[in-house]
Amino acid sequence: MELTPTLMGDVVELTRAICDVESVSGNEKVLADAVEVGLRRIDGLEVHRDGDAVVARTHLGRAERVVLAGHVDTVPLARRADGSPNLPVIVEGEGPDAVLHGRGTVDMKGGVAVQLHLAATVAPTDLARDVTYVFYDQEEVEADRNGLGRLAATHPDWIAGDFAVLLEPTAGRVEGGCQGTIRVAVTTHGVAAHSARSWMGHNAIHDAGRVLTRLASYLPREVEIDGLLFREGLNAVAISGGIAANVIPDRCVVTLNHRFAPDRSVANAEEHLRELFDGFDLDVLDAADGARPGLDHPAAAAFLAAVGGRAEPKFGWTDVARFSGLGVPAVNFGPGDALLAHRDDERCPAGQLTGCADALRRWLTTPSG
Amino acid sequence: MELTPTLMGDVVELTRAICDVESVSGNEKVLADAVEVGLRRIDGLEVHRDGDAVVARTHLGRAERVVLAGHVDTVPLARRADGSPNLPVIVEGEGPDAVLHGRGTVDMKGGVAVQLHLAATVAPTDLARDVTYVFYDQEEVEADRNGLGRLAATHPDWIAGDFAVLLEPTAGRVEGGCQGTIRVAVTTHGVAAHSARSWMGHNAIHDAGRVLTRLASYLPREVEIDGLLFREGLNAVAISGGIAANVIPDRCVVTLNHRFAPDRSVANAEEHLRELFDGFDLDVLDAADGARPGLDHPAAAAFLAAVGGRAEPKFGWTDVARFSGLGVPAVNFGPGDALLAHRDDERCPAGQLTGCADALRRWLTTPSG
Repeated sequence: MELTPTLMGDVVELTRAICDVESVSGNEKVLADAVEVGLRRIDGLEVHRDGDAVVARTHLGRAERVVLAGHVDTVPLARRADGSPNLPVIVEGEGPDAVLHGRGTVDMKGGVAVQLHLAATVAPTDLARDVTYVFYDQEEVEADRNGLGRLAATHPDWIAGDFAVLLEPTAGRVEGGCQGTIRVAVTTHGVAAHSARSWMGHNAIHDAGRVLTRLASYLPREVEIDGLLFREGLNAVAISGGIAANVIPDRCVVTLNHRFAPDRSVANAEEHLRELFDGFDLDVLDAADGARPGLDHPAAAAFLAAVGGRAEPKFGWTDVARFSGLGVPAVNFGPGDALLAHRDDERCPAGQLTGCADALRRWLTTPSG
Repeated sequence: MELTPTLMGDVVELTRAICDVESVSGNEKVLADAVEVGLRRIDGLEVHRDGDAVVARTHLGRAERVVLAGHVDTVPLARRADGSPNLPVIVEGEGPDAVLHGRGTVDMKGGVAVQLHLAATVAPTDLARDVTYVFYDQEEVEADRNGLGRLAATHPDWIAGDFAVLLEPTAGRVEGGCQGTIRVAVTTHGVAAHSARSWMGHNAIHDAGRVLTRLASYLPREVEIDGLLFREGLNAVAISGGIAANVIPDRCVVTLNHRFAPDRSVANAEEHLRELFDGFDLDVLDAADGARPGLDHPAAAAFLAAVGGRAEPKFGWTDVARFSGLGVPAVNFGPGDALLAHRDDERCPAGQLTGCADALRRWLTTPSG
């Protein structure tokens, strides 16, 4: 596949073409090569390559710089209802009513196509702000392979900006920021004994009752940040204890997951849990900071005005937190319905592709108020 | 090995000889054959055989009938500290200070030897009550292979009596009756959801907190039965719940073990648990009735007087409950320290063998007061 100006000029055909270049995580090279070559042909873009990540930037000397980012990998292919693989893409219908069926149409080569289309079709003179286009690899696998994480560590200057839009599928809604997450193990300790002589031991599972009642009575915070209401949560996601059917258990482990609003750091969240479970043995298993929506930034306000609708908070942890970690507020906004991502019948209406491209074009070309 | 009158006359040599006939569960035939032949030589005994169980009974027309019972199988051989197998028996020391080392010396060929020795050496005219000697197979394996259970099902008349002594090792103490046991699963049900949107679900592990606090605050009964104090217990022996680190769990299972005094039946115990956990989903996993000590029976009182000491309750479930199920009160009383049973260094002092035989001889020959 070659990213010719003609192909890049039609966002629907472009989506179809880049979906048909299979790029399951770890196998992005062919597509990344095509993206790099296509971007290098465009006047006024500085292009960088790191592994299978490609970054292209304008240098117009505008007051603001915004970032459009998307991952070029997909989850593995699946089979359609008729047993055939879900690539190449099948198009049903025509024109604005067409629907593209196949792997990546939603998550997220539709968004990647919108980025490429904008890079190729918005004249630099029309841009109200400088733009950085980021195409990265290995988002659908373990966090330590993530291409955006690699760029943040090795070339933070390439992806710096005042505001970022991650073109993950949101079906046209704006999802701002994301909650942080921390997982801890709370362990109770007892003394094993034969269950026929239970008074010789001490039951660690019974002690876990105090952990669970504390969880059941916990009132999670609701916090408004940059106009978005974040709802926290604190939940046991696993519990295990027991040695044998006739033995008083000497150990019980409750695994908790706390999702916290982005006004708190991981350190704050850990401190909160240690206060809540004071007197219990608590170990942190893993944690990640959240991200503030950053909707108070002028570029963000202009973005919301251009794309319309109301922003909503993002509850799950997403790559917007990586931008936030670099001091770049970020939102999710892209074509496709996230509920169809990863499914065998993944599919995206052509109208969402053109609609998303039009909204972002309005924004990129409209000065901040 | 042949059970000659001379061999049966010396309980220590007899213990050694029958230990040296390896009879790991399922391999009792050679020993059972020898026991059957030996018993058939004794005047005044009616002998029955069922599989590898042998029963011998006097028919003197006495007012009471007592049962002495023991299993002839052992757990598998092990190796002594020097690496050699723990059979044949090694005798250390001499006379009353001798100690027999080897598999079965404690659990429970010492007790079996006492039974055989009494059958061979107590003259029928001296017996104050009729006696039934029960030798059974496969006690050390799954309950459904138990030879006493088989006899109870197929020949309950062979093992009927007014009072039974099971010659399991108790190191000379009398352990009366046994507690019943019931295992149940208490399950809570929730609604799965992503843990970042926990309010969309319902946490089943949190609900289990009410089960655990009920257990933690439960005050087990202490009940005196026939002069013995039975202490009950109600304990979680296992808990499990959780689907994935980021999912609100829709199910949590608490496995409970209730050990109940023998004044309650399995049906009573189940009803008690259903009241205690009213509103929860409760399934009975397994259960077994306990056994009353039966120490109020004249033959039992005479037994306690003859063997001396104070009876104590048995907390674990034992084969005395099988007798109890047939309406025969039963106690454990036999040579050997139960803590040495099944160990590589299993061993029994000769003095306990002769002491136990003497105590039971006194009892069998002394009329009830």
